[in-house]
Amino acid sequence: MSVPGPLAGLLVVDLTRVLAGPFCTMVLADLGARVIKVEAPGGDDARRIGPFVDGESAYFASLNRGKQSIALDLKDGADRSVFEKLLARADVLCENFRPGVMERLGYGWEALAQRHPRLVLASTSGFGQTGPYAGRPAYDIVVQAMGGVMSLTGHPGGPPTRVGSSLGDITAGLFTAVGIQAALLERERSGKGRRVDVSMLDAQVATLENAIARYAATGEVPGPMGSRHPSIAPFEALATAHGHIVIAAGNDALFAVLCETLERAELARDPRFASNELRRSNAAELSDLLEEALAVRPADAWIERLLEAGVPSGPLNDVAAVVADPQVAARNMVVTAPLAGGGRLEMAGNPVKISGFVDPPTRDAAPALDADRVAIVAELERDGEVSV
Amino acid sequence: MSVPGPLAGLLVVDLTRVLAGPFCTMVLADLGARVIKVEAPGGDDARRIGPFVDGESAYFASLNRGKQSIALDLKDGADRSVFEKLLARADVLCENFRPGVMERLGYGWEALAQRHPRLVLASTSGFGQTGPYAGRPAYDIVVQAMGGVMSLTGHPGGPPTRVGSSLGDITAGLFTAVGIQAALLERERSGKGRRVDVSMLDAQVATLENAIARYAATGEVPGPMGSRHPSIAPFEALATAHGHIVIAAGNDALFAVLCETLERAELARDPRFASNELRRSNAAELSDLLEEALAVRPADAWIERLLEAGVPSGPLNDVAAVVADPQVAARNMVVTAPLAGGGRLEMAGNPVKISGFVDPPTRDAAPALDADRVAIVAELERDGEVSV
Repeated sequence: MSVPGPLAGLLVVDLTRVLAGPFCTMVLADLGARVIKVEAPGGDDARRIGPFVDGESAYFASLNRGKQSIALDLKDGADRSVFEKLLARADVLCENFRPGVMERLGYGWEALAQRHPRLVLASTSGFGQTGPYAGRPAYDIVVQAMGGVMSLTGHPGGPPTRVGSSLGDITAGLFTAVGIQAALLERERSGKGRRVDVSMLDAQVATLENAIARYAATGEVPGPMGSRHPSIAPFEALATAHGHIVIAAGNDALFAVLCETLERAELARDPRFASNELRRSNAAELSDLLEEALAVRPADAWIERLLEAGVPSGPLNDVAAVVADPQVAARNMVVTAPLAGGGRLEMAGNPVKISGFVDPPTRDAAPALDADRVAIVAELERDGEVSV
Repeated sequence: MSVPGPLAGLLVVDLTRVLAGPFCTMVLADLGARVIKVEAPGGDDARRIGPFVDGESAYFASLNRGKQSIALDLKDGADRSVFEKLLARADVLCENFRPGVMERLGYGWEALAQRHPRLVLASTSGFGQTGPYAGRPAYDIVVQAMGGVMSLTGHPGGPPTRVGSSLGDITAGLFTAVGIQAALLERERSGKGRRVDVSMLDAQVATLENAIARYAATGEVPGPMGSRHPSIAPFEALATAHGHIVIAAGNDALFAVLCETLERAELARDPRFASNELRRSNAAELSDLLEEALAVRPADAWIERLLEAGVPSGPLNDVAAVVADPQVAARNMVVTAPLAGGGRLEMAGNPVKISGFVDPPTRDAAPALDADRVAIVAELERDGEVSV
C-alpha cells in the first residue's frame, strides 16, 4: 500500500480524524511509512465531507490515499485486543482527540509507555494537552482567528479574512510530523518512545514568527496589508492591462531593473523611492505609479519581460492554472489515486523529493471503511503464532 | 548554544539565508540540533531587514536564536578548507541558493556524496532543482501567487490578498525539516546520506490539498470566500455589538446549540438551514441572521456563552492579544533571547512539545557575524590532532 521511501518499515497506527492528524500521517505515508487507519465503527467524519464523486468524499480520498483501514470499537473487548496487538507492533500511534479521550479509553501516555516503551505517541489537538484552553473544541477558523494570522491577512479597514487553505490544521500536521521523526531519531539512541504534543494554536503562533518579533521590537501592532509585505517594497500584486501580476523587488538594484523594464527609469532616481525604507513609507504612491506603467501591457507580457530582466515576478494562478502549470507537472506535484467508483482523482503530490527514492505519479486509493480488517487480523494472528 | 532536545548531538552546517532555510534550521535547533551558520563575509541578508533594535535586526535575531556563526568565503582556499573540515563532521548541510550555485562552488550533490557519504544535503529553493522554472528567482509573494493560495484568500470580487505571514517560506522550511529527518532515519539503516530537494512552490501546492481535490472532483475553480469555509457553514467571522468573533458549527447538533445560545432556536428549524449542505447554499442569508442575533452583545460575552454551550468559537486576536493570551503563555509559545545591545527580544517558541525534554522559556542570542570563528576553528584543529 505504501510508496517506496525513506520511512519504509515504519508502522504508524492512526486514530486521527478529519484534517490535522490525517495530513500528518499522509506526509508520513508519502515518505514510505505504512499507515493503518483505525476508525470508529462510523468511520472518519471526513468521509461525509463533500464534494463527493460517486458517493465517495474527494476530501477524504485525497488525505487518506495509500492508507489501510480497520474499524475498531475501542470500547469493545475483542476490538481492543486487536488494537493492542497493533500497538505492540507499531512504531507510532497518532491521535487527534480532545485531550482526555485517550486516558478515558485506557490509552493515556503513562499506560501506553509502560506497556509499549518504544512506542511514540503523537497527539495533535486544538490547544494542546495542557493550559487553560486544553479542553476547548477547535476548528481551523478558530485557531486562525486566535493565532493572529487573520489579523495580518486582508485589506486595511476591510472585513476579516481567513487564509483560504486550512492553515491551522496543516501547519499543526506538519509540526507533528517533525516531532514524530525527532522522537524516532532519539529512540535510535535511547530505545525509548516519547509523547509528542502539538497544538493547532501553537503551530499558528510559531508560523507568525516575524510578526511577533516585529511587534516586540517596535510596540506597533501589525495589521493587514492587502498584498503588501511589512518590510519590503515593492512586494505586492499589481494590476496590468489585463490581470494582476506579483512583483518582488527587494533591493535597490532590483528596483532599478524593475523601473527600467517598465520604461520608467526615472522612478529609480526619484528621492521618494531612493531606498527600500523610503519605498516602504511611500508604498501607496509607488504602487499607483507602477500600475500606471503596467497598464500598457497584459500580465503575461510583463511577466516575460520582468523574468528576462531578472525581476522576481509571476502570475496570480487559480487552482486550474496551478494544476496545469508546467513546473508543477515537472515536479510531479499533482498525483492521482483510483476512486472506488472507477476513474482517478487528482490530488497534491509530495513536496519532499529525496534522492534514491522514486516519486511515483500515482498512489493507492484511500481505503473503504474497514477494508483491510481481514488481512490485518490474519497478519496479527500469523505473527502471534510465530512469536509463541 | 543548543537547547536540550531529541536532536542533541546532531550537527547541521547551515548555508541558508533570509527565511525558508533559516526557519528550517531554527526548527532543528529548537529540537536540540547544533546549527553552525556559515555566512558569506557580508553576512546573511536578513541582518539588514528591519525593524532594528539598537541596530540589530529583530527579524534576524528571532530566526537565528541559538545558532553559531562563522563567516567563510567559499571562493577562498583557506576558508574552503575550514568549510570542508566542518562538512566532514556534519550530519546535515542546508542551503537555499538558486539551483546551480552549489555546483559552481564545487559542492554539488555528486561531489559531496562522494567525499561525505553519510552527509544529508538539504536544498530549499523557490521552484526546486528541476523543471522549467528551476532557475527563476522566487520570493514569498511569487510562490503564494503562483501556488494558488492567493486565489483562495480574500473576498469575492475584491483585490488580491497575500496571506499575512510568509507562508511560502515557512511551509517550505517545514517540509525541508521533515525531509531531513526522514533522510536521517533512513541513514540509520543504510548508512548513506541523501539529497533532499524542497521547493517553495511545491510546498504551496501541497498545502492547497483540498482545493485541488475539490477542483478535480467538481471541475469548479474555487475562489476566495472571505472568512467562510468551502464545505462547512456556519464557519466564519461574524460581527457582534462590539468586535468580531469566529464561529464553527460543523454539524446539525452544533448548529442547533448555536441557534439556542443566540436565542434564535427557530433558525435550527428553518428549512433553509436544515442541513450543512443547505446552510452552505444559503450562507449569506444565514450570516445576516446570525449577525442580527449577535448584535445585542459584545464579542467577549458571546464567546463565553458559546464556549459554555460547547460551540467552537473564539476572538480575532491581533498580535498583541496573541502575545498576551494565557494559553499561549501556558504553552511557552513566546520565548525570549538576549539582544546584543542589552535587553531581551520576544519571539515565537517551539510548538513541538516532547516528553522528557524541557521546553526552555529562553534561547541563546542570535550570533553576531563570525562570532564563533575562533572557537569553531580551535575545535576543528583539536579534532584534527585526535584523528591523526
